[in-house]
Amino acid sequence: MPVKLNAPVAGELLPVPGVLLGTAEAGIKRTSRKDLLVVTLDEGATVAGVFTLNRFCAAPVTVAKAHLASGKPVRALVVNTGNANAGTGEQGVAAARATCEALATLLACAPEQVLPYSTGVIMEQLPADKIVAGLPQAVSGLKADNWFDAAHAIMTTDIVAKAVSRRVAIAGKTVTVTGMAKGSGMIHPNMATMLGYIATDAAIPQPMLQEMVKAAADASFNCITVDGDTSTNDALMLIATGKSGAAVGPAERAAMQAAISEVAIHLAQGIVRDGEGATKFMTIRVEGGRDSAECKQIAYAVAHSPLVKTAFFASDPNLGRILAAIGYAGVADLDVQRLRLYLDDVLVAENGGRAASYREEDGQRVMKQEDITVRVALGRGDASATVWTCDFSYDYVKINASYRS
Amino acid sequence: MPVKLNAPVAGELLPVPGVLLGTAEAGIKRTSRKDLLVVTLDEGATVAGVFTLNRFCAAPVTVAKAHLASGKPVRALVVNTGNANAGTGEQGVAAARATCEALATLLACAPEQVLPYSTGVIMEQLPADKIVAGLPQAVSGLKADNWFDAAHAIMTTDIVAKAVSRRVAIAGKTVTVTGMAKGSGMIHPNMATMLGYIATDAAIPQPMLQEMVKAAADASFNCITVDGDTSTNDALMLIATGKSGAAVGPAERAAMQAAISEVAIHLAQGIVRDGEGATKFMTIRVEGGRDSAECKQIAYAVAHSPLVKTAFFASDPNLGRILAAIGYAGVADLDVQRLRLYLDDVLVAENGGRAASYREEDGQRVMKQEDITVRVALGRGDASATVWTCDFSYDYVKINASYRS
Repeated sequence: MPVKLNAPVAGELLPVPGVLLGTAEAGIKRTSRKDLLVVTLDEGATVAGVFTLNRFCAAPVTVAKAHLASGKPVRALVVNTGNANAGTGEQGVAAARATCEALATLLACAPEQVLPYSTGVIMEQLPADKIVAGLPQAVSGLKADNWFDAAHAIMTTDIVAKAVSRRVAIAGKTVTVTGMAKGSGMIHPNMATMLGYIATDAAIPQPMLQEMVKAAADASFNCITVDGDTSTNDALMLIATGKSGAAVGPAERAAMQAAISEVAIHLAQGIVRDGEGATKFMTIRVEGGRDSAECKQIAYAVAHSPLVKTAFFASDPNLGRILAAIGYAGVADLDVQRLRLYLDDVLVAENGGRAASYREEDGQRVMKQEDITVRVALGRGDASATVWTCDFSYDYVKINASYRS
Repeated sequence: MPVKLNAPVAGELLPVPGVLLGTAEAGIKRTSRKDLLVVTLDEGATVAGVFTLNRFCAAPVTVAKAHLASGKPVRALVVNTGNANAGTGEQGVAAARATCEALATLLACAPEQVLPYSTGVIMEQLPADKIVAGLPQAVSGLKADNWFDAAHAIMTTDIVAKAVSRRVAIAGKTVTVTGMAKGSGMIHPNMATMLGYIATDAAIPQPMLQEMVKAAADASFNCITVDGDTSTNDALMLIATGKSGAAVGPAERAAMQAAISEVAIHLAQGIVRDGEGATKFMTIRVEGGRDSAECKQIAYAVAHSPLVKTAFFASDPNLGRILAAIGYAGVADLDVQRLRLYLDDVLVAENGGRAASYREEDGQRVMKQEDITVRVALGRGDASATVWTCDFSYDYVKINASYRS
């Protein structure tokens, strides 16, 4: 079950002027569930995105990147679940293009103005005909106040939809930022996560928007892991419609970035809290490093260790497993004598071993919580990094051994 | 349950002249089980070893390396289970030294001639007093024909003991090679595995022996993974007693290395077949790479992927997960169009997607086997690498969430 993750409330998700959303039941993998989403953007919107670095990146990733690179203004996004259209070769690229062409015809724009996204099973051909047949239903239902429905339409093994809104004052105007994301397994984003969409009605020029989406991804989706598997389909898109009339320049940039990153962090943590089989949410903070790269390397070693993750599932303060993971993280000159390990406020280890003050019952108390912070102080510099992850339970195995997701 | 792993038969494990073994019930963690092993070596034996690269290496690893470096001839090894003596600081080093001193007194040798090894829970102090109290029992039971008992005394979460013997003709004489190992979880050796001991009655000079143990480890223990966790206590020791009278020089080296590596591979594969919760044994072979490093990188990405491992547990040919793992392995210029993926003899993927000839029932047939080879042909060079691993089952979670191992 998701760890302290509240489902979004329909009325609390704020429409973003200039963005319409419509969903459909296209029957891509299963019937009677929404599995198709169309998002349209008014003229004048800017769009930026970051995509997976997986070499087996999906056909829609290839096509979306090419369409973005065409320089033509983006008018629509089309997202399907139930099939990732990854590992599908040339036929997969043709299917992604066919989807864009069909939507472009309905919207009277060029195919290059449509960006496609897919999520679901890998190495099965995308049933483009079903998507094309479902597009009119999605288009006829387009409306601004539809993020709640949209966030549900992009779910796969997610239990809870991930979506959130924020308001921020920019250039004397109130600007809205609304975002949604999906993801629960195959989560170890490298540039971005499975699928995330954030829109604002601020006006942000494209080059700045690209820098802002990268910064937001680095502060959020690039800090999470469920199982260490980097997806073939990761994409985070940032849309700025400009409808609020608030123009973001150098003076407004920091406030705008903060609002966007806050939404991105909320969504990214939501993915971990809804991680496949998760019962615990862990924050792995490594500080006192020489640079943030080595801090992140150690944080990910801890976050990926199946032994650490099963100990958290069991609420067992078997914390030597954390020391082992720190030790094999690959920082060759790490001096374990200077290292301190904390579980929330409890000092667990120092001077190369268990702290004299540590008592098993203190570790046990923290391990029983649903939210736990593992803090590693390296004592060799001023850099730090934080990674969010979840535990490893029977249900992770069950979910991934039972369904073909 | 172990995957096609036969328990060693007592009568088939050949004594190695010059090596005596004795066990005891020291009650280190649990009572009424053998948890202490003493191995003594006749004068003239050479010893070489490789150890974990984990920065939190255990106190006995530190002490064993120092004692080896002293240059004094090794006369005995002492191994305990139930406690890893890792993450135990200076107190742990003192406990390891106390164990060596007690055994040295019993054997009338110097403490530096004794090498200590521990395996079990991390970050709990070693009860050296219990070990010291158990040593006389182990010493009084020393005998040559005792490898079967010894292999059982070093087990932790192992279900089946791992031990094997080989005979090889060297310099006109028949030479014996007998080895044993333990390990089931926290298995992703980096230089060696949990604990492995191989002895031969060939005469091998120390510098050559060190090269041979490194070569054997690289061909065996450094090619396996159960959960990607590199232990704090990994050690592989190679002992040459010389009692056969067969001297290994340049002419005999290849045959001797082959016999040693064969024993090492048998033991390493045994650890994977007895991997925690294992139901499948997978050989991940990556060929056609530019160098063996990139082949191994891809093989380990596949072997470590929880999504791949749970799919094998389910016998579900959800093989797109393998493509995803290959894609995120970190080979930045990998051309997925040239790559071919085989499951045993079945061509699964080519040209960036599913092979036209691939049929689900063929994949299903192979997936149902207990032994499966995943072969990845990269098509960009002549290098190759092989990694052995097991699947990821409910029982892996159960074992690591239920016991403090």
